Amino acid sequence: MKKVAVVGYGNTKFTKEVIPIESLLLESTKKVFDTTRNLSQDLVDGVIVSTNDSSKYLAAILSELSGIKPKVSHTVEHLCSSGTNAVISGFSYIASGLVDTVLITGADSVGNPGQVLEWDKSRGEFNHPIFWASLFTKAHKRQHNTSEEELAIVSVKNHKQAMDNPNAYSHNPYTISEIMNSKNVTDDLRILDCSYPCSGSSSILLATEEFAKKFTAEPIWISGIGQKTNSASFTKNELPTLSSSIMAANDAYDMAKINSKEIDVAELHDAFSVCELMAVEDLNLTEKNTGATYIRNLFNTENRKINPRGGLIGAGHPLGATGISQMIEITQQLQNKAEKRQISNAKNGLVHNMSAAGTSSTVLILES
Amino acid sequence: MKKVAVVGYGNTKFTKEVIPIESLLLESTKKVFDTTRNLSQDLVDGVIVSTNDSSKYLAAILSELSGIKPKVSHTVEHLCSSGTNAVISGFSYIASGLVDTVLITGADSVGNPGQVLEWDKSRGEFNHPIFWASLFTKAHKRQHNTSEEELAIVSVKNHKQAMDNPNAYSHNPYTISEIMNSKNVTDDLRILDCSYPCSGSSSILLATEEFAKKFTAEPIWISGIGQKTNSASFTKNELPTLSSSIMAANDAYDMAKINSKEIDVAELHDAFSVCELMAVEDLNLTEKNTGATYIRNLFNTENRKINPRGGLIGAGHPLGATGISQMIEITQQLQNKAEKRQISNAKNGLVHNMSAAGTSSTVLILES
Repeated sequence: MKKVAVVGYGNTKFTKEVIPIESLLLESTKKVFDTTRNLSQDLVDGVIVSTNDSSKYLAAILSELSGIKPKVSHTVEHLCSSGTNAVISGFSYIASGLVDTVLITGADSVGNPGQVLEWDKSRGEFNHPIFWASLFTKAHKRQHNTSEEELAIVSVKNHKQAMDNPNAYSHNPYTISEIMNSKNVTDDLRILDCSYPCSGSSSILLATEEFAKKFTAEPIWISGIGQKTNSASFTKNELPTLSSSIMAANDAYDMAKINSKEIDVAELHDAFSVCELMAVEDLNLTEKNTGATYIRNLFNTENRKINPRGGLIGAGHPLGATGISQMIEITQQLQNKAEKRQISNAKNGLVHNMSAAGTSSTVLILES
Repeated sequence: MKKVAVVGYGNTKFTKEVIPIESLLLESTKKVFDTTRNLSQDLVDGVIVSTNDSSKYLAAILSELSGIKPKVSHTVEHLCSSGTNAVISGFSYIASGLVDTVLITGADSVGNPGQVLEWDKSRGEFNHPIFWASLFTKAHKRQHNTSEEELAIVSVKNHKQAMDNPNAYSHNPYTISEIMNSKNVTDDLRILDCSYPCSGSSSILLATEEFAKKFTAEPIWISGIGQKTNSASFTKNELPTLSSSIMAANDAYDMAKINSKEIDVAELHDAFSVCELMAVEDLNLTEKNTGATYIRNLFNTENRKINPRGGLIGAGHPLGATGISQMIEITQQLQNKAEKRQISNAKNGLVHNMSAAGTSSTVLILES
């Protein structure tokens, strides 16, 4: 298997403005070209678009708009983890030897589909993600005696960390009491525990070891990959655990030949506050039953190890862009280019991205 | 690069009936399980869905419906060549060593999106494929003195060959005069020169060399891959040539290390009659300026080398399934299992699939 590196990237601002999908895709792609040395259109072998937008032929459209005539081009969709699915697809095209470089561009705009599992009629009116998030939250409170304050700390921390992310959707430094007193959207969920579907786009360029040198002095290697789809329906989930994330993480750690304790910085899929509390345990970043204490300690010590860019809660959640934006944050951290968000001496990073109540998950390990 | 084989397959009937996308996907997947020895759900590492349907999370839905809990799962879309894009994606997952087996299931239903390039406002009311097909046809007539009869022969041949394809949309043995006298949809295009968008689904199972032995005594190897996207807009095309197909074919022949003359059987993307006349030249299956004569000779000698299952014109064109259905036909031909459609002694086969006026193309070479 050939080695594959992240060698370039570009983000748009994440915003509540409705923006045409083609404009979003083009904007983050242009930033890759603006910031990657020696990059020209003829050096891009593949263009993979990640989105929940229902427009067709977007990879060809993005290619034409950006002057690329690629070999590989198509759209990848898998709800909220479309981004990491596209990344792994790009990885496999390069690792197999079929191509040398792949541009992966994700985007979604406010109001795009993918936020509700329309197909699952068994849910009736309860098909919005807030309902599964409520079930997870209720179960987490019951099983771990999790307090309202512990849940709020996740959101406070991530909103605070987003203050130093210039592309974040939110730049509001909420207090614990503001989170705790924010509007209840269900009995167990407050509005400020939810991530915001928004407009945004993120792009990365992947390349072989040989091509990586051309584009950057600091390639970041994708060393571990794990993916698992357990179901499409929420009914098969155990509460409050992300079983697909456990399996994906184990595979990713095995492939990277590292231990979870060696992870210096992680982007976790905090679609709702409870997801971060589950993920730190399910990915073995802390011991079972210590998730809330672990996050509280990070918060109290101003340690940005988990979700330094603000997570989905602080940065916003433009579905098709999210996984790619997570990849960019870890890449910047491992390149020591994360500015105010920088974790000192980060060598190994992790991306955790999932879909539909954690019925499927992706875990990626990156190393400098 | 690991070797990758087609080791199982399943087709539904192609029909004008409107069928739910989930039912279509499941039906061809079930046929793979019904006909592939030793195949069980736990042996499927990846589930890739190819479709233009706008429903989300279909790969997870198909996985749950069919009892598979895959690692890789997502949807691939690239208009009419979604199918071969999904095949090459599955190929690269296996060739890279990430997984051992991938199920690729394509489907579309009557009325699904993807038949019109909605985004291209510059076309005004002329955004239906019949308009680009008319431009190609007019240019072909002008440049090659192609007669109405020569165009009709493509359609007669493919409708005739579809008579022996039990899954074909059409089982009507049209005569040359019936084709020539069918309704004009534009000045240069008759209704019986058009392929039919319809409902249908096709699945193939890909596997490593090691796993291939488990599933079949006759694995068919994917030995050549070529892809090219030149644009999304028709305006950049030269007439009457499929320039992306030329590039894709050259790459595929190079990778397979074979000459076009060694191709024994080919599935070509005859979305309209003129496409087959262009493709046989652009893929170098016959000399420049001899396309119409070449097809007439095949027809007169009842040689089924080109589009033995009836092509898109005879078999129908359920967009996301088409490329996969082409793969199945070539697999059956190389396994000597194509029944009445069998080409004698076929060793090397070719699949040609394209999108949006040939602005992008895929060419795949298969060998026994």
